[in-house]
Amino acid sequence: METEVLTITTGRQRAIVDLTADVSRFVASKGDGLVSVFVPHATAGVAIIETGAGSDADFLDRIDALIPRDDSLYRHRHGSPGHGADHVIPGFVGPSVTVPVLDGVAALGTWQSIVLVDVNADNPTRRVRLSFLAG
Amino acid sequence: METEVLTITTGRQRAIVDLTADVSRFVASKGDGLVSVFVPHATAGVAIIETGAGSDADFLDRIDALIPRDDSLYRHRHGSPGHGADHVIPGFVGPSVTVPVLDGVAALGTWQSIVLVDVNADNPTRRVRLSFLAG
Amino acid sequence: METEVLTITTGRQRAIVDLTADVSRFVASKGDGLVSVFVPHATAGVAIIETGAGSDADFLDRIDALIPRDDSLYRHRHGSPGHGADHVIPGFVGPSVTVPVLDGVAALGTWQSIVLVDVNADNPTRRVRLSFLAG
Repeated sequence: METEVLTITTGRQRAIVDLTADVSRFVASKGDGLVSVFVPHATAGVAIIETGAGSDADFLDRIDALIPRDDSLYRHRHGSPGHGADHVIPGFVGPSVTVPVLDGVAALGTWQSIVLVDVNADNPTRRVRLSFLAG
Repeated sequence: METEVLTITTGRQRAIVDLTADVSRFVASKGDGLVSVFVPHATAGVAIIETGAGSDADFLDRIDALIPRDDSLYRHRHGSPGHGADHVIPGFVGPSVTVPVLDGVAALGTWQSIVLVDVNADNPTRRVRLSFLAG
Repeated sequence: METEVLTITTGRQRAIVDLTADVSRFVASKGDGLVSVFVPHATAGVAIIETGAGSDADFLDRIDALIPRDDSLYRHRHGSPGHGADHVIPGFVGPSVTVPVLDGVAALGTWQSIVLVDVNADNPTRRVRLSFLAG
């Protein structure tokens, strides 16, 4: 298995970061197989959505509507406001996606991008592990 | 890796389509490994639920309750009413599942079916990529 | 592919059960690859969250807030109260996660645990299939 860790600077804000170009570079010339995109953090997720046309911000808004940043709702409430919510989000927006790769190209649809969902503004850098299993 | 693209006719309505028979046919006689079911569309998802006893319609209802089809909630609002919601849904109901296969049989539980979740009535046909990684 | 089925006693209560130690034992000395953790039940899920600091109970609370246990909301309503909700939950909290393994160690982050989410109190034991695909 070929594997590599990206370091993504998300800064001191909550962010959805498009990882598609990084994944494309990683799988280029690797043939056929599956690529796993895995974030080893308990307050971040990975998803596949359209980016650049408003849906990335819409997705963050909807996460906040469904998992409110009201600390009175959570037992886990040390840290910055909203940290209880941050820890529940990965239960719904998981830390990993797996995508088929054909002849060195991720088989994404035209409007699909692989994104890091970093809901936690306290962590300015995030790691993302890319792994390729040839088949 | 063996891979194949299904073309699924969902028609001009939102639909949950059971893909289990297609996946079973695809993995038959392929031995042991993992099968990836991946939909290359930004307004559709793949899930594993019970079908045929009401839960498929219940699931669509719950998606609409949690991600309302009120366009005023979304930045992304070109297209038909509800299109902003359509683009957020894959953040919560992802485009892919991976299932273990044993001796050519997907190791699903008795009540589990693999389904395409097509929330977008504008697309009458959908593609689904099946990929098998032997192990 | 190496594969094994765990039997997990969840008892007559809804529970989040930490499977990390079981997964770690399973992958130990297996080298590099991907491990799939798959629950073959239609009223349970698998997730990766922090455990032991309140977020596991917070996650169950949030599941109930978003997918209420009010049977009038669901078509599928045989069985115990809340069973309609139980069947919708896996649409949002899926039955499987896939995690990279490096030199026999699951590449989880410090605060990540792999958990079984058993929302259905009627089933005192659950099966979980672990599968390792070497790469």
